[in-house]
Amino acid sequence: MKSKQIAHHVFFWLKNAGSVEDRDKLVEGVKTLSKIPLIKELQVGIVADTEKRDVVDASWAVSELMFFDTLADQANYQNHPIHQAFIKNYSGLWNKVVVYDIQEV
Amino acid sequence: MKSKQIAHHVFFWLKNAGSVEDRDKLVEGVKTLSKIPLIKELQVGIVADTEKRDVVDASWAVSELMFFDTLADQANYQNHPIHQAFIKNYSGLWNKVVVYDIQEV
Repeated sequence: MKSKQIAHHVFFWLKNAGSVEDRDKLVEGVKTLSKIPLIKELQVGIVADTEKRDVVDASWAVSELMFFDTLADQANYQNHPIHQAFIKNYSGLWNKVVVYDIQEV
Repeated sequence: MKSKQIAHHVFFWLKNAGSVEDRDKLVEGVKTLSKIPLIKELQVGIVADTEKRDVVDASWAVSELMFFDTLADQANYQNHPIHQAFIKNYSGLWNKVVVYDIQEV
């Protein structure tokens, strides 16, 4: 049995909402984060073509889901140079970010 | 290399916001979903004690993150009797749900 992890799930909304080009650029950017050794697993996503329901938020463009062993690893990730470079190089693409930090139980 | 999956991430807000008892009941309820064979993996979570930042939404109480092989599996999950029983037995605990359906890329 795996130990309990910290999941860090980030959703990005594009400045140019609906731009496939900007979405793909941001996907490329998020994938650079996989080089950060503190991240145990990184999954990059776009909106899935599921049924439209009131509870489903499909207004975002790109998501990053990553897992950490500890809260300290997540905190150190924030300051990692590759993460900082990602923000510097790609933050021009988005105008809204929502983050969920999750403790597995 | 794994094939690309569908992630289905649901966040629940409690009617009795801040009730640890109701949170734990809902965690127990969400865990019943793991018996649904269509779900490849289920991770149940509560709010992690990470740094408070403007972009971090820590107002929810319980999360369920599950993975499916296909969009059809996700659609069939919605109608699965164990899922329907979960809604019947536990929906009195929450007053808001937000769902993100994610296609891995």
